[in-house]
Amino acid sequence: MSVTAAQGFTAAGIAAGIKENGNPDLALVVNNGPRLAAAGVFTSNRVKAAPVLWSEQVLKGGRVSAVVLNSGGANACTGPKGFQDTHATAEKVADVLGLNAAEVAVASTGLIGVLLPMDKLLPGVDTAAAQLSEHGGEKAAIAIKTTDTVHKTSVAQGEGWTVGGMAKGAGMLAPGLATMLVVLTTDADVDAETLDKALRAATRVTFDRVDSDGCMSTNDTVLLLASGASGVTPEYAEFAEAVRTVCDDLGQQLIRDAEGASKDIKVEVINAATEDDAVEVGRSIARNNLLKCAIHGEDPNWGRVLSAIGTTRAAFEPDRLNVAINDVWVCKNGGVGEDRDNVDMRYREVHIVADLAAGSETATVWTNDLTADYVHENSAYSS
Amino acid sequence: MSVTAAQGFTAAGIAAGIKENGNPDLALVVNNGPRLAAAGVFTSNRVKAAPVLWSEQVLKGGRVSAVVLNSGGANACTGPKGFQDTHATAEKVADVLGLNAAEVAVASTGLIGVLLPMDKLLPGVDTAAAQLSEHGGEKAAIAIKTTDTVHKTSVAQGEGWTVGGMAKGAGMLAPGLATMLVVLTTDADVDAETLDKALRAATRVTFDRVDSDGCMSTNDTVLLLASGASGVTPEYAEFAEAVRTVCDDLGQQLIRDAEGASKDIKVEVINAATEDDAVEVGRSIARNNLLKCAIHGEDPNWGRVLSAIGTTRAAFEPDRLNVAINDVWVCKNGGVGEDRDNVDMRYREVHIVADLAAGSETATVWTNDLTADYVHENSAYSS
Repeated sequence: MSVTAAQGFTAAGIAAGIKENGNPDLALVVNNGPRLAAAGVFTSNRVKAAPVLWSEQVLKGGRVSAVVLNSGGANACTGPKGFQDTHATAEKVADVLGLNAAEVAVASTGLIGVLLPMDKLLPGVDTAAAQLSEHGGEKAAIAIKTTDTVHKTSVAQGEGWTVGGMAKGAGMLAPGLATMLVVLTTDADVDAETLDKALRAATRVTFDRVDSDGCMSTNDTVLLLASGASGVTPEYAEFAEAVRTVCDDLGQQLIRDAEGASKDIKVEVINAATEDDAVEVGRSIARNNLLKCAIHGEDPNWGRVLSAIGTTRAAFEPDRLNVAINDVWVCKNGGVGEDRDNVDMRYREVHIVADLAAGSETATVWTNDLTADYVHENSAYSS
Repeated sequence: MSVTAAQGFTAAGIAAGIKENGNPDLALVVNNGPRLAAAGVFTSNRVKAAPVLWSEQVLKGGRVSAVVLNSGGANACTGPKGFQDTHATAEKVADVLGLNAAEVAVASTGLIGVLLPMDKLLPGVDTAAAQLSEHGGEKAAIAIKTTDTVHKTSVAQGEGWTVGGMAKGAGMLAPGLATMLVVLTTDADVDAETLDKALRAATRVTFDRVDSDGCMSTNDTVLLLASGASGVTPEYAEFAEAVRTVCDDLGQQLIRDAEGASKDIKVEVINAATEDDAVEVGRSIARNNLLKCAIHGEDPNWGRVLSAIGTTRAAFEPDRLNVAINDVWVCKNGGVGEDRDNVDMRYREVHIVADLAAGSETATVWTNDLTADYVHENSAYSS
């Protein structure tokens, strides 16, 4: 499973000692070819971590031979020394594996504003390289966890080819362009341009529409690597669908494991004038703390949905808005609709439909409820 | 004090039975002249409550003879019937007091999506009118409370004239143009145009920069009424300063009483290229849930400040950003600064300075921490 489900990839996950608690914290994913095509999308936060700045440059070449990822430290806001450390990490991987450092992507996650313990990380690369295996995908997925309670992997099968991947992310979860740390691999024989197109199409409607807590990370990275090892070049539509399926599955896993959450909330905006309108409204609803508290309390408080819609620039008339919560249309034509007592809120998934009655476009944004556990985890854990 | 500190005003606050718990819920403020000048600013939420739609029309005339305010129900998202109820309330006040209904402003606060109990509200107007008094300001301030734990009043004295006011608001506290329910009165002899100018200048830098929970209300209303009873027409600058002082004081009182809050956070953005940049950055920091949790945990987590700045469009270079928390410059040039252990976070007020190093403009936005109590109050209370 994970990043080694596709042929042509090896991976490893080890404990290098970057995390003080001794948990796994270093992952290595290697593309053994024959093709080394790659695409990546990164955070749109203007404060970017050193590994993001490095990997953006690497990806411009469209070739990635290895990805080294660490948890236990974001290497963000660490100045020139932080960038040197990322560079040194890529050089180390290149040395050990006989690769070109300019084709080694780096990703980091953890506390912002702290330098990485390079005296532990660099020897860890040796250890990880020695453990590279065609069955190492699971261990790699485990090594990139921070506050994640479970590791996240996904696989989609084509005819003779495979797309697999791993993801981490549980907080600071509201990507602007990409999200969290995600590595996808495929043995399909696909060039970098096609990978880029399929990856952007997929992230736009999956990770980009996960908005757990409205807080955009400095480290979001999604990479897609192709080894070509299957020798099969799928139809674009089929390949793009597989990439989207894996991204969607991983995005769902992120939401289900979000910090402190007790509800997964699907915000579906329908009958919008444009897709942008639908996304703007969906995001506004998803970020409304009062609504997120109400959902936590199993209170179908549609007034908070309307007040969130009202802050957007989307096309709508207030007296034509309709809102359903778990299939009960509690708001009709901007006012009181069906009996809110009919809404069953007992289950983890909550489905909110906001009907803008202004067109035919739609978008779905996923978020979580706001809980005392979220507050506790993020006031006690310096991350 | 409150709205009856200025000459020419009477007020009352009574329990009409709109709130099921029997607490005061209806307030009346009457301008006895000789002048009836008024200005108002309202929520920029596009989903506006019936009383906002009504009062916006009233204020276009620049004359207000009375304001009737109720807690216990927002009369928002209540359709044509809700608007009829607001209209009927204004008519009732006009009838009882011998006024023109077109000069009676209405304001409501409470649960969205529920019709007001007019059978209780209308008789309540009779009761309130019978209790109108030059000493009624305090009672009026008490009657507009919802989740507020204390009532909020403020007074500024000019030479021979006075500006006083009352406010309510504890949640859904992130005004776009105005805020919450606020009524200011003055006996200065000032025309409606001048009132409007002074009020907009004041709210722009006070209520508009209070952002407790990022949630914009459907009912925000700020009114400024002038009776001219002092016979004094102050210099504009002096008058505007008095209005700003009262608005600032009331805004601070709102922050100090925000739902579940344990910290008041002053976010000061300095050296911005433009004031708009400073406000955008201040608001982004103020709305960052992760930072608000960290402050609750007395954790000077400046990385979350930087990640919030990074999501804005403001002019800045990441490696020139500086951040101080309670006077300790924990982030310098985008990286680690002074020792974070030197930050004393024990007190209720926390002062964050974000230095964009991009110009000379500045702005201050006030917010609160995010607490388990906020979650509890807003998951248990359907408001």
